[in-house]
Amino acid sequence: MEFKTVGQSIWRVDGEKKVRGEALYTIDLKMEGMLHGRILRSPFPHAKLIKIDTSAAAKLPGVFAVLSREDFPQDGPLSPYLGRRMKDKTVVAMDKVRHVGDVVAAVAAVDVETADAALRLIDVEYEELPLVSDPLEAIREGAAQLFDHLPEVKNNICHHTGLKQGDIEKGFQESDIILEDTFTTPVAQQCHLEAHNALAWFDSSGRLNVQTGTQTPYGVRKSLAEIFQMVEEKIRIMVPYIGGAYGAKSHLKVEHLAAVLAWKAQRPVRIQLRREEVFLTVTKHASVVKMKTGAKKDGTLVARKAELYYDTGGFAENGPNVVHKATLTASGPYRIPHIQADGYAVLTNKPSAGAFRGYGVPQVALAYESHMDMLAQRLGIDPIEIRVKNLLREGDRHPTGITMHSVGYEELLRKLGAAIRLGDKKRNRGKARRGKGIACMIKASNTEAQSEAKVQANRDGTFAVFSSSVEMGQGVETVMAQIAAEELGVAWKAVSFIAQRPDTDLTPFDAMTSASRSTFCMGNAVRRAAKDLREKLVQFAAEIMEISPQDLRVENGRIFAAGAEHKGYSYKELAVLHFKRRERELAGNGFYGDEEDAKTVLPFWLVGGCAVEVEVDTETGAVKLLKLVAGADAGKAINPRLCEGQVRGDATIGIGQALLEELKFVDGQPVNATFLHYTLPSFQDVPDEFPVVLVEQPHKNGPFGAKGLAESALPGVPAAIANAIYDAVGVRIKDIPFTPERVLSALSQKESKF
Amino acid sequence: MEFKTVGQSIWRVDGEKKVRGEALYTIDLKMEGMLHGRILRSPFPHAKLIKIDTSAAAKLPGVFAVLSREDFPQDGPLSPYLGRRMKDKTVVAMDKVRHVGDVVAAVAAVDVETADAALRLIDVEYEELPLVSDPLEAIREGAAQLFDHLPEVKNNICHHTGLKQGDIEKGFQESDIILEDTFTTPVAQQCHLEAHNALAWFDSSGRLNVQTGTQTPYGVRKSLAEIFQMVEEKIRIMVPYIGGAYGAKSHLKVEHLAAVLAWKAQRPVRIQLRREEVFLTVTKHASVVKMKTGAKKDGTLVARKAELYYDTGGFAENGPNVVHKATLTASGPYRIPHIQADGYAVLTNKPSAGAFRGYGVPQVALAYESHMDMLAQRLGIDPIEIRVKNLLREGDRHPTGITMHSVGYEELLRKLGAAIRLGDKKRNRGKARRGKGIACMIKASNTEAQSEAKVQANRDGTFAVFSSSVEMGQGVETVMAQIAAEELGVAWKAVSFIAQRPDTDLTPFDAMTSASRSTFCMGNAVRRAAKDLREKLVQFAAEIMEISPQDLRVENGRIFAAGAEHKGYSYKELAVLHFKRRERELAGNGFYGDEEDAKTVLPFWLVGGCAVEVEVDTETGAVKLLKLVAGADAGKAINPRLCEGQVRGDATIGIGQALLEELKFVDGQPVNATFLHYTLPSFQDVPDEFPVVLVEQPHKNGPFGAKGLAESALPGVPAAIANAIYDAVGVRIKDIPFTPERVLSALSQKESKF
Repeated sequence: MEFKTVGQSIWRVDGEKKVRGEALYTIDLKMEGMLHGRILRSPFPHAKLIKIDTSAAAKLPGVFAVLSREDFPQDGPLSPYLGRRMKDKTVVAMDKVRHVGDVVAAVAAVDVETADAALRLIDVEYEELPLVSDPLEAIREGAAQLFDHLPEVKNNICHHTGLKQGDIEKGFQESDIILEDTFTTPVAQQCHLEAHNALAWFDSSGRLNVQTGTQTPYGVRKSLAEIFQMVEEKIRIMVPYIGGAYGAKSHLKVEHLAAVLAWKAQRPVRIQLRREEVFLTVTKHASVVKMKTGAKKDGTLVARKAELYYDTGGFAENGPNVVHKATLTASGPYRIPHIQADGYAVLTNKPSAGAFRGYGVPQVALAYESHMDMLAQRLGIDPIEIRVKNLLREGDRHPTGITMHSVGYEELLRKLGAAIRLGDKKRNRGKARRGKGIACMIKASNTEAQSEAKVQANRDGTFAVFSSSVEMGQGVETVMAQIAAEELGVAWKAVSFIAQRPDTDLTPFDAMTSASRSTFCMGNAVRRAAKDLREKLVQFAAEIMEISPQDLRVENGRIFAAGAEHKGYSYKELAVLHFKRRERELAGNGFYGDEEDAKTVLPFWLVGGCAVEVEVDTETGAVKLLKLVAGADAGKAINPRLCEGQVRGDATIGIGQALLEELKFVDGQPVNATFLHYTLPSFQDVPDEFPVVLVEQPHKNGPFGAKGLAESALPGVPAAIANAIYDAVGVRIKDIPFTPERVLSALSQKESKF
Repeated sequence: MEFKTVGQSIWRVDGEKKVRGEALYTIDLKMEGMLHGRILRSPFPHAKLIKIDTSAAAKLPGVFAVLSREDFPQDGPLSPYLGRRMKDKTVVAMDKVRHVGDVVAAVAAVDVETADAALRLIDVEYEELPLVSDPLEAIREGAAQLFDHLPEVKNNICHHTGLKQGDIEKGFQESDIILEDTFTTPVAQQCHLEAHNALAWFDSSGRLNVQTGTQTPYGVRKSLAEIFQMVEEKIRIMVPYIGGAYGAKSHLKVEHLAAVLAWKAQRPVRIQLRREEVFLTVTKHASVVKMKTGAKKDGTLVARKAELYYDTGGFAENGPNVVHKATLTASGPYRIPHIQADGYAVLTNKPSAGAFRGYGVPQVALAYESHMDMLAQRLGIDPIEIRVKNLLREGDRHPTGITMHSVGYEELLRKLGAAIRLGDKKRNRGKARRGKGIACMIKASNTEAQSEAKVQANRDGTFAVFSSSVEMGQGVETVMAQIAAEELGVAWKAVSFIAQRPDTDLTPFDAMTSASRSTFCMGNAVRRAAKDLREKLVQFAAEIMEISPQDLRVENGRIFAAGAEHKGYSYKELAVLHFKRRERELAGNGFYGDEEDAKTVLPFWLVGGCAVEVEVDTETGAVKLLKLVAGADAGKAINPRLCEGQVRGDATIGIGQALLEELKFVDGQPVNATFLHYTLPSFQDVPDEFPVVLVEQPHKNGPFGAKGLAESALPGVPAAIANAIYDAVGVRIKDIPFTPERVLSALSQKESKF
């Protein structure tokens, strides 16, 4: 199939206005009479809420509303409950606080300073409770319990996923070699540059309006409808541009607080979190992954047992989903006949962990891709060959029962290996030692599939796409314009996002912008909408040409009778004629996720990996990345430049997590929750050589063969670096980040062993 | 046909928020960084623009933009031209000014005071031109010409409509009696309580947004698109509630000035006119109607010749349409075999006259209904009988060729007559003399027919109507909710206007809210949309019940198998099931005005009249209204209370025009353009007895038989009062308003004759 617009690296349609500083973000929006909301947060990781007295705060001039548990009486108009998977959370703390930063009260005032002053006037009495700081400790008998009223929670475990195939005992008996190790990852944070913020107001019709930088406008609408006990359609969520999200801006974060304050104050209220608060709002799951892998001498994988303990913090958030996704791919992209994996989402007294690019997969990929290299090394097999030997291939059955499709692993691995000349070892024996490593990953995109789109013909023959996919830097507007243009047979410039940002009053339903699902799910919806519109245009052309629609051809924005290309009509001419005849909307609709689509069960597999070359300073323990090659199977790259940008950005987050990032807690208190103390990768930390490899194994159900790829690089990075460190200095580090201290400590232990 | 919701006088859905003061109008809307626009207006009625220097104004601190003809160079980005029927008007004056108040320049500044100060710094040099102050003078040879570059304009005439039937000469030859009179009406003003105002801004996508109290959101969009030379879809018009309009808020009034200032200042700009400016922005056409009527002795009308000269002011505005409408009904609601009418829209150096409730008909109705009574009196026939004898009836052919339908004149006239006991004459010979009069009217609603609507099922089983019909006090939101509820078979409370006000991004196309067209045109669109949605719901119910849609019944918001009413599903259950299955919009669409609808040519005739009893003080000339009965044929009154309110309000405007209102000019200068000096009817001027008569002759193409009626009462009021004055004191006054001075003068002339 030959494409005209798909496959072209056109410049992003939102590029110019972002470069010019004209693109608006939530923080740019101000309203007449707008108040500023600030939040009182718990200073204790675990405590009973004995007393809360807001009377002094409420009396402070300039304060319009003070919110506390007293605003949620048993039969009041508002429901305090929220929560993605279980209603474990409340708008403000009702009975106790479960982590430092837990929301205790909130104030809306004329300015931030007054609001802050009011917060200081709120009198709260706490009774401290025993701290639960670690998932393995949390599940032990006798541990303090975070919840005692939720039937879903037992022994601080709020979710368990099991994966089973074959006979695990038999598998290990048949194995020639068995590895058993524990891998850990710390709490990390999404570190989107734009902090959470939302502006909420009730209009004169009693409708709730919220401008917010969310990835899930329809999800936010639904959750707010539950709190306000009103029909979803009475709520309008508008999403300006977003300065990064990476999963952290899914579902309610500050929207409900702004909305309830606006309801109480009867004024617009904006809440803009400070960076310290962002660190306490949502994080990445710390994890303990115990993995036992059995293989034959020739490298054939036979058995695996895995236990995943994911620290989901004080509330479940979407930890259950994260653990579910991670556990289901504990076998990696490999055939393992006997497997048993058990994943647990465990509650502790830390900020809630939720969605973060990779969605639980990076934690388990560190384990399975370290094991692949450890096996290769022990069995003397090339790291690529041992992987290729075991790869799941087109048509294979995954342990979940899903059939593999569009999985270009072998091509990807060989290209990654070639890009760093993996076999080409250069032993260097000085202070700075070099090593190479590779890793791949698998992630199932079994997300909520539903997306609806509208494509409209404008009066000048151009087209507008109406979609609730959120542009948060990934380029979704550009990709949707290309998909619509391709389907309509016009240049991409003829397709504009006139409807601008997602707006639940204007743009149809979309489940969410996450899980790398937009190109696939919304892409299909947009393509179907464009097709629907094209058919309407052909039908209209057939009417005015008095010819059968079947005899018409569509090409280059023209509709003409086969063999008479010079006659016919341009889209512009048709639009003008249509609106002259009747001023009726001329648009097509497309929906993805109906019963037929659902039969495919899983939209697609994320297929990716990376290869690195590092230099380890044996005196300081510092690991320097010399080269990183990240790659993914795009199915079909709608816009190769954007795909490369996604893969490179994804890998950069992986670099941070592998080498630098850890949100640390001492006695439940975060100690480095600022950008001064929490270190993100800078340009000095990314390698000078940073190419991207794109593989294209078309997906039969993807729009023009495309599928998502934005989480394909990150999960492999820590393991690839671990493998490269081992290659360089012979130490196997199973805990990220690979800080100089940790590397040095490993080196000294290795030396002491000999 | 039995209705459940249609025909009920439910309370208006916008009532509570208006009473509570919660409903928002354009003036309530403020934006961060908003500037205030003010307009420099011509002090001369006719002058050349020699020089305009804005440099000093532009330098004033706080001024962000000064707009003058220099902003519209030949090949600049903006087109200066606007105009409803011809592009005779410009955003600001380019070559000359054509009336006092004509727009010369505009300023946007931080506040109104600064903007006003800047206006004073604009240096303009004018060269005065001869004044054209009167339409009959304007068309005389040698008169000064307002335009010399427009081919449509000759001798200051910008439009001529002719109506011809039969042989006018023959008709007068066959007549036993011939009347020939001249009737005049002065300039009046719409006097909507909310002045024109608009708030415009460009957003970060380069789209133009305008919040404005307009009756024609899509018309404003189209005209702004022409000025900014951009596709209509890049412009968004939002309409909050409107505090009265009466035709004055059709098409561009201040929107273009706010928009161009916003474009130049790169900031939001609001323009809020002062009352004096409103008087100079648009008015009602002053008129001279020469009418010659011939009849047989038995009262049978035989011939009519009419010449209508309508003073349309300095620019055509929609004067051509007004004159067209007026001329076409110069025969009134009567059979006249021989007729010739010529209507002229004439340009003079007065503010532009445009649409005003009645749309040219009140001017001509004064003539033809005075003539009917003059004939009755001369021939000794009862005023009702002479009318009934000549009435156009169902199936008759109107001189325009259109067939009469839904014209309940006889019932209406007899009910009006009975209500004031027209025959029951009480001769009183004192100082205060009483008299009674009656009049009727006809108006063709041959307006632009197209309207589109969407009706959406919400997640709780309620419904939302999306319509661009503008709520300006008339109750259109309520009527549309009733129509949708009736068609869906639910209580009206289940239908809400969740989409709120018209918004060209949200609510589909509607030609305009004027010409009493909404109940008919938009009502049909809403009904069709509701039907479309109901069919979708039935289809869905059939699917889940595994039954044929034909076997299902819809009643009381439930869909069930015939004979099994207790089973089935409520709309709420269906909505919940639908959105559980797929989160796809569940809505119906309806369009009115396609080819099939257009075949009916004329949607409907406005049929109305009124009867009055007056008391004339022969010493002071004061006319006191003792009783006024106004009536109309509603087709079917969707909401009788709202219909009565419309008819009563309409008649009240008629009272003002008959007795009080005249915008006066001396040497082209308005002398009473304020609410201090221009007298509107107060509660003292409306009669204590003020009942309404509704007739219902169902219209075959109207929704549930309904049609418009909001302009049916006004046109008859002046003639009815003229007829009553004659009945009381025996003088025939042919010029409104019937001020005490005028009545007294007529009385003294009558006495001097004897």
